[in-house]
Amino acid sequence: MRAHIDRLMADNGLDAIVVLGDETPNTFRNYLAGRSTGSGIIVKKRGEQAVYIVNPMEIDEAAKSGLKVVTPYDLGAADIYRAYRDDPDAMRRALALNTFEKLAIKGRVAFYGAGEVHTLLPFILAIQDSMLDVELVIGGEAATIFDRMYETKDEDEVKAMKRAADLACQVVRRTRDFLTGHFASGAKFGSPVVDAAGNPLTIGAVKRFIRLATAELGLDDPEGAIFAQGRDAGMPHSKGEEDDVLQVGRAIVFDYFPRLSENGYFHDMTRTWVLGRAPAEVQRAYDDVMGIFHKVMKALKVGEPGSKYQEMTLDHFEARGHPTQRSHPGTMKGYVHSLGHGLGLNVHEAPGLSVYSKAKLAPGNVVTVEPGLYYPERGYGIRVEDTVYFDKKGKLHNLTDFPYDLALPLKVKR
Amino acid sequence: MRAHIDRLMADNGLDAIVVLGDETPNTFRNYLAGRSTGSGIIVKKRGEQAVYIVNPMEIDEAAKSGLKVVTPYDLGAADIYRAYRDDPDAMRRALALNTFEKLAIKGRVAFYGAGEVHTLLPFILAIQDSMLDVELVIGGEAATIFDRMYETKDEDEVKAMKRAADLACQVVRRTRDFLTGHFASGAKFGSPVVDAAGNPLTIGAVKRFIRLATAELGLDDPEGAIFAQGRDAGMPHSKGEEDDVLQVGRAIVFDYFPRLSENGYFHDMTRTWVLGRAPAEVQRAYDDVMGIFHKVMKALKVGEPGSKYQEMTLDHFEARGHPTQRSHPGTMKGYVHSLGHGLGLNVHEAPGLSVYSKAKLAPGNVVTVEPGLYYPERGYGIRVEDTVYFDKKGKLHNLTDFPYDLALPLKVKR
Repeated sequence: MRAHIDRLMADNGLDAIVVLGDETPNTFRNYLAGRSTGSGIIVKKRGEQAVYIVNPMEIDEAAKSGLKVVTPYDLGAADIYRAYRDDPDAMRRALALNTFEKLAIKGRVAFYGAGEVHTLLPFILAIQDSMLDVELVIGGEAATIFDRMYETKDEDEVKAMKRAADLACQVVRRTRDFLTGHFASGAKFGSPVVDAAGNPLTIGAVKRFIRLATAELGLDDPEGAIFAQGRDAGMPHSKGEEDDVLQVGRAIVFDYFPRLSENGYFHDMTRTWVLGRAPAEVQRAYDDVMGIFHKVMKALKVGEPGSKYQEMTLDHFEARGHPTQRSHPGTMKGYVHSLGHGLGLNVHEAPGLSVYSKAKLAPGNVVTVEPGLYYPERGYGIRVEDTVYFDKKGKLHNLTDFPYDLALPLKVKR
Repeated sequence: MRAHIDRLMADNGLDAIVVLGDETPNTFRNYLAGRSTGSGIIVKKRGEQAVYIVNPMEIDEAAKSGLKVVTPYDLGAADIYRAYRDDPDAMRRALALNTFEKLAIKGRVAFYGAGEVHTLLPFILAIQDSMLDVELVIGGEAATIFDRMYETKDEDEVKAMKRAADLACQVVRRTRDFLTGHFASGAKFGSPVVDAAGNPLTIGAVKRFIRLATAELGLDDPEGAIFAQGRDAGMPHSKGEEDDVLQVGRAIVFDYFPRLSENGYFHDMTRTWVLGRAPAEVQRAYDDVMGIFHKVMKALKVGEPGSKYQEMTLDHFEARGHPTQRSHPGTMKGYVHSLGHGLGLNVHEAPGLSVYSKAKLAPGNVVTVEPGLYYPERGYGIRVEDTVYFDKKGKLHNLTDFPYDLALPLKVKR
């Protein structure tokens, strides 16, 4: 929660934070500025209103943030622009020092934000190497105050995430109906899936359908969904091949993580589908995944560390003979990732459900639960994912309202 | 051109470059890896093939880059993950040092890439503070080698940008036809624009139309178009207000900068429209803008510095009595920005057409030309923008094929 920022700064002995930025998408800036666009930077001193420094052209958009908006000209930068017009590095350094001096930023300061390394670095090093009364705080607990804010959603955020969930489920539903509106060209495993005219259905066509539905419903999908079949489905981050034709009986992993166009809050869900009938081996692996999925859903509660659920999942899969990252570090077969991650303005944020997640789950947390099994050389992979949240009282709610059927029936050509 | 990378590294005395990254969109990584997704980092030693370091899950997608792909496990990181599982900072530092040691990165090294400041900084500082035989090169000419590569498009890039231009023009055409399919509710300046049923047309509805057309044509539009009316149009980076109703006679600035979904190459174009008849003052300002627009288009040639065209534009507007950033530094009225910018995988890149652009225009350059005049307190703004490129022989081509009409007729209700 943004409201905790001063307390978090105090807890970590920070006198100021500086959120750097350029045109690179910047969740930190969006979080403090309420998704106002622009390329400015934000300075927040403890106990004071944050200051948003933007170019004159961006004043109007920046003003929507409710932050105090100033331009570099207000800070007297006109002279710097003039003096260093032929030396962009010196200009960056001078602007950095000027910003710190004019805004009287002192004491323990942490940098956040996102941007291009070769332009941000000179800014930071100019401060580090300066005579200013500033101690840069790098790493450690102090570097995690955004993680701490992100991981506890307030009511507006939960409302946005419910809306994102509802719209995402609509897109997945439309996609399912689109698929099951097609025909099996034969009953045999591997037969092409075709349309009424007999034309094969490609992954590219499905992805176009998904992109359109995404836009129609007011979502956007910056990275594009994973819609991967067979061996590709067996690689957790393979996106799928545009030209591949969908096949009867092959496992498809559809991992969809769009965000609301209006404010950037994400949903994240995955279904594994087989068009036609699922082979016995795939069905068994699917049952193993759903077994731990439901077990975790029942067990999740506030006060427990996220790592507990990853351990539970590792135990479950290892007991069933699947290799894991614990039993076989670096394995690409079996259960190869962590169980889940926080979600919000970032598609991956705190808290996690991984071996590293020692912090206790808390009210306001929104996390994914996504066990999976991957056997690329056997031609399949499986993952099922919902996004859940803990309300103020610590009660668990599933945001993803969508059935878990593995097999989707196709039409049969007469 | 990517092909120039070793020469550029040699010219700048660089032994290696390291492109850092995380999940933040990262043009540098995309450029070297051919838009492969992932969250890995790329190490390129001079004269050697680049190495793409990704997590095991991302191997398949990374392999599409054609780069040499390794995982941290291949570099012996399993021990580091184990040793530092409770200390993420120490883990980041150890991974940084291990990467440099195992890949034998030495000598003069520059960092590039994009990412979150608080995770990238420890990586860079670990190297800076290490005993490794590495000299970090920060700023200066050496920091611009990606700018130098970006600014000279090869044939594949020009082909992609032509396609992006063609699709962008189709979206703008559809948007224009959508607008002119509406009705003036009265002839008077400021009368609401309405649909056949008499419902007012809002900017939100136009933006939804644009988003859908964008997705339909295989583009995406990560930031969203500028579609701003009246006073908002007078603020160059105001995005427009969703709930505002379009009005007869008000200037609308439509700045559209989508990219191809398949490979991320941008187009960038702007039109200023008035629905119905344009007021005389707006028409005069428009003529001033088009005057310099055509003059620049005729004058642009390779061998001249980009700054020349900005100076030409400043002269033009000042001679016509408009304030500029030169005559009135920091002004928000008149001509308040630079004339243009390079375009490619980045919506703003080298070369520029600004007072700072001392380098000579060259074959392969793709730049926007976008003069504008802004009078927010008088309720209007104007900008017209095309994207042009210089072919191998230095001949200028306009990629934006779209008419320059200011006034768009509306239907009249009978």
